[in-house]
Amino acid sequence: MTLLRRELGDVLRERRRAQGRTLREISATAAVSLGYLSEIERGEKEASSELLASICGALQLPLSKVLSDVSSRMAESEELAPAVPLPVPTDTVVSASAA
Amino acid sequence: MTLLRRELGDVLRERRRAQGRTLREISATAAVSLGYLSEIERGEKEASSELLASICGALQLPLSKVLSDVSSRMAESEELAPAVPLPVPTDTVVSASAA
Repeated sequence: MTLLRRELGDVLRERRRAQGRTLREISATAAVSLGYLSEIERGEKEASSELLASICGALQLPLSKVLSDVSSRMAESEELAPAVPLPVPTDTVVSASAA
Repeated sequence: MTLLRRELGDVLRERRRAQGRTLREISATAAVSLGYLSEIERGEKEASSELLASICGALQLPLSKVLSDVSSRMAESEELAPAVPLPVPTDTVVSASAA
């Protein structure tokens, strides 16, 4: 099962690195400890909504954009291992078993 | 500031109601207490990644879809009150002050 905090952490880390910024810089701007930010990026800790807003602010990224990235990544992993069973059209199943 | 947990709670509640299902039904399927689920829907409590996956499973909704809905709602509220200041082109500012 793909967890939100892992995909979110990956997105936050990728965005930070793409900006060429360090954990130290973002942690200072977002007023979060370096260790905690690192745990969030590694998907080991849940970020509260307030902290997430603060980290996005430090990265100068709208939260909507971060969530949209996370949604795309989750969609990809859901295609590989659907959490919700996909509906199978009945006629397809009949044809397959008849073949 | 629009918080993730509030938008997420709104989306989860709207989706549940659109399915004509009760808090009691979803809380039983998702193995979360009715009171806690209600607080999540009202944006008063953060849902852990595991619990969020469980609630989405009970609603038979891919998490990617829920996040995509939340992202769209956040984008709308960001347009009304941008958390990140929008860049103002320098020439526009010059023209405006010259006018």
